[in-house]
Amino acid sequence: MNPDTPRPCGRFITLEGVEGAGKSTQLDALAQALAARGLRVLTTREPGGTALGEELRRVLLAPRDGGMARDAELLLMFAARAEHLERVIRPALARGEWVLCDRFTDATYAYQGGGRGVAPERIAMLEDWVQGGLRPDLTLVLDLPVAQGLARAGRRGAADRFEAETLGFFERVRAVYRERAAAQPARYAVIDAAQSVEAVQARLLDALAPLLGGGAGA
Amino acid sequence: MNPDTPRPCGRFITLEGVEGAGKSTQLDALAQALAARGLRVLTTREPGGTALGEELRRVLLAPRDGGMARDAELLLMFAARAEHLERVIRPALARGEWVLCDRFTDATYAYQGGGRGVAPERIAMLEDWVQGGLRPDLTLVLDLPVAQGLARAGRRGAADRFEAETLGFFERVRAVYRERAAAQPARYAVIDAAQSVEAVQARLLDALAPLLGGGAGA
Repeated sequence: MNPDTPRPCGRFITLEGVEGAGKSTQLDALAQALAARGLRVLTTREPGGTALGEELRRVLLAPRDGGMARDAELLLMFAARAEHLERVIRPALARGEWVLCDRFTDATYAYQGGGRGVAPERIAMLEDWVQGGLRPDLTLVLDLPVAQGLARAGRRGAADRFEAETLGFFERVRAVYRERAAAQPARYAVIDAAQSVEAVQARLLDALAPLLGGGAGA
Repeated sequence: MNPDTPRPCGRFITLEGVEGAGKSTQLDALAQALAARGLRVLTTREPGGTALGEELRRVLLAPRDGGMARDAELLLMFAARAEHLERVIRPALARGEWVLCDRFTDATYAYQGGGRGVAPERIAMLEDWVQGGLRPDLTLVLDLPVAQGLARAGRRGAADRFEAETLGFFERVRAVYRERAAAQPARYAVIDAAQSVEAVQARLLDALAPLLGGGAGA
């Protein structure tokens, strides 16, 4: 079901953060920096990354009268993830590529767990069910005060079903990201996203240096 | 998360069977027969039964190049089910209604388990995760040789993503229904669907008699 195939050189890197933290900009710059080092890089996002995943993204983000049952939302996130893992992420890692993913399961703990109040144990069961032993090699958390991030994101147009949430919702999202990073410092790097784009990019590359090995400073 | 609310009088009845077994016709007739006995009856279906569920039904049934990861299909089925349980089924049972549902989790064991080859243990984990302790009070299996059912269903027009499967797929679906019924005879009634519509309806009402209590023969 979930074979943990050997990965001789591919790496799985995820970017996380509240709305407006600059994930998309940083992901693109990071992909270019890694490609310039001669690495094969695949950038993708969640929910999404496949035809089915993008369909489910539209279902998940569309404003919806009466909302959606919390369990249904959570299962849809993992349905999109199952397709993404089987069709995109695992094959790329098996080919030795670096996969840079805009949001992954940490976002589920943050949004559905922290934001909606689903117990983390219930999320962990689905994580194991869908992913088997696969976890990101490194998760980069772009951290920013919620009000500052929302002010940036607000400039992008109409709010989707998540962007329309309350300030308290996003405070809980941010808190979960920070708690998870604090609990497993080896797997996370928390970057202050209030800095300039260039300064954030430099910190991201610093965080990646251990994975880049001897060639990192070259 | 999944409160098993007390149900003083409501009953949860599911209808199952391969394509062309006559579920829809029988479900409507059964609903009328129960309503004629003064019961409050709600008829619904899976995947579907809610606005979100019907959206996901379209996603699941649409022909799709390259198919869909088995885990993704399974999680979508349970996402639709989670919404259906929270918004429709549990509230109706709590109001004391009889819920007649065209397909439920037995169909997941039959189609995704038997048909697609997902291990039943993996389905059982999601069943417990989504439903808690809730199971149908009675499951009516309309049983029919596969070729006969497909000949009937074929008259209905273009094949969806499931109807386009092979004969072997549907033989495995039928086998799982029969195995599950044989393993838990108290919760299932297998009805020979090759009989006339009227004869099948009479057998369905016989099967419901124990749930109808003293008023069954009235």
